[in-house]
Amino acid sequence: MLISDYDISEFIREDVPYIDLTTKLLGIENKYGKMTFATREDTVLSGVEEVLKIFEKLDVKCNSFLPSGTFLEKDKVFIEAEGAVGCLHMAWRVSLSILEYFSGIATRTKVMVDKAKKVNPNINIVTTRKTFPGTKKLSIKSIIAGGAWPHRLGLSETILIFQQHVNFVGGYEELAKIIPKIKAVAFEKKVTVEVENMEDAILMAKAGVDTLQTDKLSVEQLTEVVEKVRSINPDIGITAAGGINVNNVEAYAATGVDGIATTSLYFGKPSDISVKIELGQ
Amino acid sequence: MLISDYDISEFIREDVPYIDLTTKLLGIENKYGKMTFATREDTVLSGVEEVLKIFEKLDVKCNSFLPSGTFLEKDKVFIEAEGAVGCLHMAWRVSLSILEYFSGIATRTKVMVDKAKKVNPNINIVTTRKTFPGTKKLSIKSIIAGGAWPHRLGLSETILIFQQHVNFVGGYEELAKIIPKIKAVAFEKKVTVEVENMEDAILMAKAGVDTLQTDKLSVEQLTEVVEKVRSINPDIGITAAGGINVNNVEAYAATGVDGIATTSLYFGKPSDISVKIELGQ
Amino acid sequence: MLISDYDISEFIREDVPYIDLTTKLLGIENKYGKMTFATREDTVLSGVEEVLKIFEKLDVKCNSFLPSGTFLEKDKVFIEAEGAVGCLHMAWRVSLSILEYFSGIATRTKVMVDKAKKVNPNINIVTTRKTFPGTKKLSIKSIIAGGAWPHRLGLSETILIFQQHVNFVGGYEELAKIIPKIKAVAFEKKVTVEVENMEDAILMAKAGVDTLQTDKLSVEQLTEVVEKVRSINPDIGITAAGGINVNNVEAYAATGVDGIATTSLYFGKPSDISVKIELGQ
Amino acid sequence: MLISDYDISEFIREDVPYIDLTTKLLGIENKYGKMTFATREDTVLSGVEEVLKIFEKLDVKCNSFLPSGTFLEKDKVFIEAEGAVGCLHMAWRVSLSILEYFSGIATRTKVMVDKAKKVNPNINIVTTRKTFPGTKKLSIKSIIAGGAWPHRLGLSETILIFQQHVNFVGGYEELAKIIPKIKAVAFEKKVTVEVENMEDAILMAKAGVDTLQTDKLSVEQLTEVVEKVRSINPDIGITAAGGINVNNVEAYAATGVDGIATTSLYFGKPSDISVKIELGQ
Amino acid sequence: MLISDYDISEFIREDVPYIDLTTKLLGIENKYGKMTFATREDTVLSGVEEVLKIFEKLDVKCNSFLPSGTFLEKDKVFIEAEGAVGCLHMAWRVSLSILEYFSGIATRTKVMVDKAKKVNPNINIVTTRKTFPGTKKLSIKSIIAGGAWPHRLGLSETILIFQQHVNFVGGYEELAKIIPKIKAVAFEKKVTVEVENMEDAILMAKAGVDTLQTDKLSVEQLTEVVEKVRSINPDIGITAAGGINVNNVEAYAATGVDGIATTSLYFGKPSDISVKIELGQ
Amino acid sequence: MLISDYDISEFIREDVPYIDLTTKLLGIENKYGKMTFATREDTVLSGVEEVLKIFEKLDVKCNSFLPSGTFLEKDKVFIEAEGAVGCLHMAWRVSLSILEYFSGIATRTKVMVDKAKKVNPNINIVTTRKTFPGTKKLSIKSIIAGGAWPHRLGLSETILIFQQHVNFVGGYEELAKIIPKIKAVAFEKKVTVEVENMEDAILMAKAGVDTLQTDKLSVEQLTEVVEKVRSINPDIGITAAGGINVNNVEAYAATGVDGIATTSLYFGKPSDISVKIELGQ
Repeated sequence: MLISDYDISEFIREDVPYIDLTTKLLGIENKYGKMTFATREDTVLSGVEEVLKIFEKLDVKCNSFLPSGTFLEKDKVFIEAEGAVGCLHMAWRVSLSILEYFSGIATRTKVMVDKAKKVNPNINIVTTRKTFPGTKKLSIKSIIAGGAWPHRLGLSETILIFQQHVNFVGGYEELAKIIPKIKAVAFEKKVTVEVENMEDAILMAKAGVDTLQTDKLSVEQLTEVVEKVRSINPDIGITAAGGINVNNVEAYAATGVDGIATTSLYFGKPSDISVKIELGQ
Repeated sequence: MLISDYDISEFIREDVPYIDLTTKLLGIENKYGKMTFATREDTVLSGVEEVLKIFEKLDVKCNSFLPSGTFLEKDKVFIEAEGAVGCLHMAWRVSLSILEYFSGIATRTKVMVDKAKKVNPNINIVTTRKTFPGTKKLSIKSIIAGGAWPHRLGLSETILIFQQHVNFVGGYEELAKIIPKIKAVAFEKKVTVEVENMEDAILMAKAGVDTLQTDKLSVEQLTEVVEKVRSINPDIGITAAGGINVNNVEAYAATGVDGIATTSLYFGKPSDISVKIELGQ
Repeated sequence: MLISDYDISEFIREDVPYIDLTTKLLGIENKYGKMTFATREDTVLSGVEEVLKIFEKLDVKCNSFLPSGTFLEKDKVFIEAEGAVGCLHMAWRVSLSILEYFSGIATRTKVMVDKAKKVNPNINIVTTRKTFPGTKKLSIKSIIAGGAWPHRLGLSETILIFQQHVNFVGGYEELAKIIPKIKAVAFEKKVTVEVENMEDAILMAKAGVDTLQTDKLSVEQLTEVVEKVRSINPDIGITAAGGINVNNVEAYAATGVDGIATTSLYFGKPSDISVKIELGQ
Repeated sequence: MLISDYDISEFIREDVPYIDLTTKLLGIENKYGKMTFATREDTVLSGVEEVLKIFEKLDVKCNSFLPSGTFLEKDKVFIEAEGAVGCLHMAWRVSLSILEYFSGIATRTKVMVDKAKKVNPNINIVTTRKTFPGTKKLSIKSIIAGGAWPHRLGLSETILIFQQHVNFVGGYEELAKIIPKIKAVAFEKKVTVEVENMEDAILMAKAGVDTLQTDKLSVEQLTEVVEKVRSINPDIGITAAGGINVNNVEAYAATGVDGIATTSLYFGKPSDISVKIELGQ
Repeated sequence: MLISDYDISEFIREDVPYIDLTTKLLGIENKYGKMTFATREDTVLSGVEEVLKIFEKLDVKCNSFLPSGTFLEKDKVFIEAEGAVGCLHMAWRVSLSILEYFSGIATRTKVMVDKAKKVNPNINIVTTRKTFPGTKKLSIKSIIAGGAWPHRLGLSETILIFQQHVNFVGGYEELAKIIPKIKAVAFEKKVTVEVENMEDAILMAKAGVDTLQTDKLSVEQLTEVVEKVRSINPDIGITAAGGINVNNVEAYAATGVDGIATTSLYFGKPSDISVKIELGQ
Repeated sequence: MLISDYDISEFIREDVPYIDLTTKLLGIENKYGKMTFATREDTVLSGVEEVLKIFEKLDVKCNSFLPSGTFLEKDKVFIEAEGAVGCLHMAWRVSLSILEYFSGIATRTKVMVDKAKKVNPNINIVTTRKTFPGTKKLSIKSIIAGGAWPHRLGLSETILIFQQHVNFVGGYEELAKIIPKIKAVAFEKKVTVEVENMEDAILMAKAGVDTLQTDKLSVEQLTEVVEKVRSINPDIGITAAGGINVNNVEAYAATGVDGIATTSLYFGKPSDISVKIELGQ
């Protein structure tokens, strides 16, 4: 799974600005070795294609690999490579970090998606734009690899009206009046408004917004909101956001919303992946 | 706390490649507003100086701020800024993400350092080079802000011999023979070897390595290793690594090692920080 | 009007990789001068903020300016600056090129928007993503400055199904069957399909697509399509595209479509802007 | 025709920052397809080598192509490629934009060169440095592909004295006095002065400038100037500039000048090129 | 003396990727200090403006400075700055390296120019494009600061025919035949040919080349060549190149050539500059 | 010998921003040629791998090469390549500059290392971080290729206390008191202090610093210092720095220090390497 085009070099330079000093001092850099990566737990792979690019830049030859998005149980080898020991050591840790952090995201995503879909097969898990600064491209790739979709990629391409916008139009009542105009201008996009209570949800549904995004409602509150706004507009989209994660996703999925927006997949424990570097022949 | 010089622009572009479409459509971009950031829990700030740079690039005026490294209890305002609403909305989320993710690292660091030092005031918490790919500069800044030190910044400046190196010199016995030569060449640096058991630890201590790094030893095993290798060389440095985190750090600190190396501070829940954007005057 | 954050330096380096050799050879680089920019025809300004950044990098002091988006008749001065002659000459041509090319886009946009709105006040002019490679950020800024909106910014954030996609799902009949599934997954976005004839337009309207994009229909054909698909779904959005430009926009606007998508604004004659560089005091 | 070395990635990222969302949602990204590019009108190709680089970055395999500089009549296929549908769709539009905009430049160049040479086989069409900001490398490549030459690439390597310089040496009379000194220092380059009337042209020719560049003279004025200055110095070079384009180039070429400098080739309608993406086998 | 616009950040990152560890460990980073730079020998300054940019990026305040191009005798202070000790230490060495290496170039240039002009006041010292890879912008600035000019900045803007070109046109005899055609096409530039002996020099002078560049001729040979080719074409330019440096420049200058091209100024001992960092108040 | 990953493109663009104009004007760009590089003196090669990358970017095919670190006597061919003449000319000079400047460093390094080791086989030559700004990656590669090691790569990874630090802790006496604390915190690294006289050397040795760096001591002074401090701590490391170069290295090596730190290898005359470009078949 390819994702646009970007420079993998910075990742390498972060870890190895010049050489692997240890390998050079030990005098083993020109020996020839094999490097294998294997899972140590259930894992959805992500970042594999980026590791292949690193191998190419560092003269490491990849003999076999499984692509990002592959689900593996523990103790499965998924990359086999070979090369000069100096090159293998330069590639090792940066590759492992990419695989562990981004497979961690992909794996958490699959777990959350599976839990939610069990309760509500039509639910969509979507992830917010609040990625760890500097990691967005691969984080987006990883949640897609795990079965989620990006909620919005940034500020420039979607219309999502927050309290922080409403403050400048004079409140939700005033906002309601201009929703039709906004919709007419942005006729190719859906207009979404974030609401934190029933009152605003009703107001916005009546004003004709395409999608409601609820923030930090309890499951009970959300259930009522869904019922009420669907009675006003059965075609309205509803996204639940705010504090929803792998632990409470089932209850929220059961409310019948169209989607659940979460940031929680972007952080957490990296996947545990083992690497062996041994004498090749 | 300044950290070298690097380009903050990529962080902005990740979130707002062009404009804040919502603000533009609502026609509020030229109104004037105030933006304040406040803690919602105990927090060690990090990333504040980077946010100031973002403000400068996006024509947001900062009226007051507290520097990275500051410890704050909940509900404390630490940045006050103002500007055109279009600019504030472009700066808001990228600034918040930087503050939340990196203050999260700094705060976790302080918690772990405090716990460890309570048990052993001379202990050092050091962090590995296994940062989330793409975040290294600010991650390093954040662990320093929280009271830890970088263990090694990359492959090019320290000598740390892993099993993956030893495989190519013929095992630990052979390694022991060349340690003196390595030390003579690298006379300005300490030579560190990673060991996983008592036998190798003793072998390496006798060979004269400057620092031992233990991997995944239990507290009991580590206690014995410390006692034994110190009896061989009282000046040897000992770093414990592998599976040590905020939950078990006290027991490991009590073993008397010089330092504890951990990756666990680099990931986890971001700090919870609130932002208000309101009408300014 | 600020647009994200990006590096203006490449524009400078394109024109002046080192110094202005002529100024240096004439020995006038340290004299002090004034530089003024003025319109030579009706112009909607664009690129002014970028020119200010160039001035800052090249030590040119700006005394006054009018922002991007300003409409000016001919012979109006809109930037006054001063500095060492060597600096003024380094800044001159790159600034002028930015102002002329991007104000050209903004001005063409205003002309087309004005013509279309006269006929149909609710029409939206939207511009495609087919910008001159390397100029996208400022081209998007310029069409917004002139009163249009971006149709889609790229491939990653909108759903627009072309013939080139349909070829792989087995034709429009097959596509119709999966539209509901696509809509459910992409519930936060509108699903748009490009059609080239009445038959496919009807098929897609019945299938429930949110927006139709017509390609290269005549005004007569488009009029019929609008009437027909609106009778199927009065809320459907319709964007006309393909060969519509400033010369025929009125007729297309009169068809009652919601928007007209065009690439034609991105190219054409740059605005004519004069620059004087004279002795300052 | 290779042109230096530069990064094609920004062009890709402009159009597809992450993935082709439509292809992904339709579930067709892993199908296999063929993509062909063909002319729809007389075209001088440019940008082909850059498209090949894009294909390489996006895992698209090119089966055949014709190089930049090739002249083709309409309906000629000039690139055939294949790959996964997701990759083809990521590559499609950015490749097409490059080919259309830059072949447009090359084609306009050939038309203008052919017209001028018919009248005056020794004439040279040279293009100014006023390229669309951000497009210089490929614009220069394209005018060369079409048969023109760059007039000057930037400020640092040629000596071209404008009115804006003359203002600081005290007028053309004073400039005449220092021309010999300038020539002695810049002995490896030609010294060119821009003039707008006969008087200054004569003054400069007598002062010994190597090349005169006339600005916005009528054909009649230019004819007189050429005759007069050649009578002063038969070896002087004369470049006509200012308002000369494909429509009036023949008359200007007939004046006997050595070259015609124009900016007009850099902008205008892109070439019309068709793309098909179909099922491969 | 400003030179275009480029990124100084890489210079900083080369030396200080994160922080000054020593300052941090000593706990002195927030103390306040003064930093002064002074010459230790006769020096033509270069790189001062770049150091000011570094100061700005690293929060160091410059109180006074002398610009690039200034000639100073030994023990003259030319930069006084102040700031937090952590910042001063981050800025110190990178600033010093820039000043020492590039002032070294400027100073060597002045010495060579002065020696040559004493013998032949009309001589020009020009420097080749063979700069130390990665240093071109500042190297060019430095030779200009010292009184020389760039011979050619690169391959794209000048015509210099080497033996390595002549090999492909069939030898100098064949080249002579096409010189007129080359001159007609490149009528805005001078055509230069490198020659290594009298025979080719005569051939080329007769063919009408604008400038001859001699390679590795002895002073005696060069004297004869100058006399001979000037008798053929008194206006021809002659540049002597190949092995000319500060030690033999006077003899070569005395031959009456127009210019001497040299690479020797780009390398050699850096200037000796002292830095003090002391307690400020 | 691979060194991390970095962008070679800037080197190309410095020399050839667009095309080789001369080759294009001569009409020989599509002829096919061979290019060979050969030594003209004893040379340790460096930069060969970077030249291979340049060849790849510029469509030049390398038929054979010898790797960086190879020692060659004069007149040995070490790179043979072929390609279109336009490509060969674009690659020629930038490749040659890389090879000449960086092989110059590698060769000077070998000469100095050999001289020092003859006197003291255990001596280490280490190079400071004072590289020519913009050349660090390849300069470090080159000194390693020649047999030296980097002394410190930058400020962030080593502890080296200069006078400029000591000024802020209250002098060497005060520094002595905090050395134990610094050592405890930085237990994985050696603590080095620069001293300029016997008194401070003794003070620091007694304080327990791991390594002393002497600055600008005469051979006699250094001999006494070595003897004295070794009598205090036989395990202390001693690095001599300040004014040591290839001419006096033997005397300094004979003092028995562990290492000699020098900047002198980074500058000086480039290696003399010849290039032929001839007709291929």
